[in-house]
Amino acid sequence: MAYSAFNPPVRTLMGPGPSDVHPRILAAMSRPTIGHLDPAFVAMMEETKGLLQYAFQTENALTMPISAPGSAGMECCFANLVEPGDTVIVCQNGVFGGRMKENVERCGGTPVMVEDTWGEAVDPDKLEAALKAHPQASLVAFVHAETSTGAQSDARALVELAHRHDCLTIVDAVTSLGGTPVKVDEWAIDAIYSGSQKCLSCTPGLSPVSFSERALEKVRNRSHKVQSWFLDLNLVMGYWGGGAKRAYHHTAPVNALYALHEALRILHEEGLESAWERHRHHHLALKAGLEAMGLRFIVDQAHRLPQLNAVSIPGGVDDAQVRARLLGDYNLEIGAGLGALAGKVWRIGQMGHASRAENILLCVAALEAVLSDSGADIHTGVALAATQQALGA
Amino acid sequence: MAYSAFNPPVRTLMGPGPSDVHPRILAAMSRPTIGHLDPAFVAMMEETKGLLQYAFQTENALTMPISAPGSAGMECCFANLVEPGDTVIVCQNGVFGGRMKENVERCGGTPVMVEDTWGEAVDPDKLEAALKAHPQASLVAFVHAETSTGAQSDARALVELAHRHDCLTIVDAVTSLGGTPVKVDEWAIDAIYSGSQKCLSCTPGLSPVSFSERALEKVRNRSHKVQSWFLDLNLVMGYWGGGAKRAYHHTAPVNALYALHEALRILHEEGLESAWERHRHHHLALKAGLEAMGLRFIVDQAHRLPQLNAVSIPGGVDDAQVRARLLGDYNLEIGAGLGALAGKVWRIGQMGHASRAENILLCVAALEAVLSDSGADIHTGVALAATQQALGA
Repeated sequence: MAYSAFNPPVRTLMGPGPSDVHPRILAAMSRPTIGHLDPAFVAMMEETKGLLQYAFQTENALTMPISAPGSAGMECCFANLVEPGDTVIVCQNGVFGGRMKENVERCGGTPVMVEDTWGEAVDPDKLEAALKAHPQASLVAFVHAETSTGAQSDARALVELAHRHDCLTIVDAVTSLGGTPVKVDEWAIDAIYSGSQKCLSCTPGLSPVSFSERALEKVRNRSHKVQSWFLDLNLVMGYWGGGAKRAYHHTAPVNALYALHEALRILHEEGLESAWERHRHHHLALKAGLEAMGLRFIVDQAHRLPQLNAVSIPGGVDDAQVRARLLGDYNLEIGAGLGALAGKVWRIGQMGHASRAENILLCVAALEAVLSDSGADIHTGVALAATQQALGA
Repeated sequence: MAYSAFNPPVRTLMGPGPSDVHPRILAAMSRPTIGHLDPAFVAMMEETKGLLQYAFQTENALTMPISAPGSAGMECCFANLVEPGDTVIVCQNGVFGGRMKENVERCGGTPVMVEDTWGEAVDPDKLEAALKAHPQASLVAFVHAETSTGAQSDARALVELAHRHDCLTIVDAVTSLGGTPVKVDEWAIDAIYSGSQKCLSCTPGLSPVSFSERALEKVRNRSHKVQSWFLDLNLVMGYWGGGAKRAYHHTAPVNALYALHEALRILHEEGLESAWERHRHHHLALKAGLEAMGLRFIVDQAHRLPQLNAVSIPGGVDDAQVRARLLGDYNLEIGAGLGALAGKVWRIGQMGHASRAENILLCVAALEAVLSDSGADIHTGVALAATQQALGA
């Protein structure tokens, strides 16, 4: 069998991630590989830590990328902070809260679930009730920005409640980091993880994490070893926290880290506030176009993530066919629904480098073309003007 | 603080990995990112599986890369195949056998250690004695090619012994795959893992694994859930094994997989037998030069890995200073000793794309220059001729 070189089609990535990757990041990624203990590499790692501290708005010393995707970042938080027998309150309002529950169980903990309707924010009152009902709980976990629904929860309020009941917190910021405010120190988050491929617009494969001193204290004083050798922070810190004297733990994904360094540089150049404002502005333009067509958002405006827009699929429309045509005819990727929302919603991302005026226009125009062509009951001929007007506002 | 673009120095990588990455692989890695469920991507994943089956010499359906470095590939094998209470025989003849022991313990298993001197091959007689003494053992794990010493063990014989005593096998082929024969089906290996950054000469960050049907049977019939959600093969298979209908598990490291695909294409073009022969040939040339200088290998020729050459550091020589000068003056990276061998040996890799005549010459010439300059007691003026002669042979 002969194998040809893989030349991927050039897509516009407006699904739930990966998002469009800036050419500067792809160029950085293809620079020559050097050793993971090379002094030049170590200096770059130190800069990456500083840049991540900026992105997370924290001075936490343990702020670094895990050498694996966001799911491993999630597992790193749970594997290090949960001990067998611990009670962990998990707030679930979408797919990823369910994954948190899985993690608690696999670490030998007992999850207490606080359930909210998918598409809604986590209800602080329900969390408070759970904290009161389970005084033995030591940890509260929730998703700041649910990638499966596009709903955002009030992280500051939830963390405050958890702390009032002497619980540490694990926060999923996979989709929020870089697109909407995430303030680790101001909100007093104890452990947080994100992904490289969302609003950081980097290639997928890395998971930035940050742990407070209080969280690390718990990790250092565990009575059982962390069940994952690969994710044991006591070991990982010997490499990432070692300054010039680094201990070998695993071989770092050198080129992926070049890419992350460049992605974080781009975010730093733009400034967090400008990035948040850009996502907000383009969200409003996308919303204007989608709503002019007659599409409805499943999340209330108050809790809606600007960077991830979940809209109901109009009746009588073939979900898969529409996405296939967007991809086939316009090289545009949007996301399918996940879990309970599969077949019911589309998830339209405009994250990081994908959050550009030209992408918003393309998305609205292509969706209108494909939907009207497939006989969907939408308003035609009005969406583009609404989008353009909002873009100009 | 201002952050500059990271422009790594151009090194020749002759340590224990990462090894030199072929420019074709770096170019592939920087191609535009597409979605991890894009049909074009899925087709590329299928090819990658086929190419990995070739590299591993197997028809195992579950042959794929784990989305994280080799340490995670190791953990994937143990987390899926060890259940709490299992007895696992671990053969240790270097650092990585020790890491296997850690993995067994963290999975709730009981390790039975079979110890061999570092630098020697695993002794099949000792394994047999352990199998007889521990008839309850269900698993045997060993390192085919010890990256910490450069010793190679007889994988076929060890697997045969394990099977005779009804044990499954986990084999570490991180440093062997692509550089020296690894024949998964012929040797009847049950579970094997490798790394992308050694003789495959790809960027670091991925861990190819392969599981036999017999091993998968055990994974499917576990009585406890796999303790890692991220590495649970029952879930990972829904994505990698799903054919056209793939279930989302985690976001695949898209660009890293472009790189692996290209690295495997290069190996396939050259052919495994030619790659093995190339490593052997260049090893003999390197050996000729190093021995002419008076350096001594720590592993007997019979068990010596051609791609990883551990030599004793001559007396009175400052280990770190020599490596720093090789790096600073000649952009040449060689590896330090690990664990019990730290400060005692250098590990000189010539793996994958780094196994080229020009690198062998450079390494011998640079080492002679730096060693003679630092007053080491070596023979000078003879190494290059010996190397050249062996290269021409």
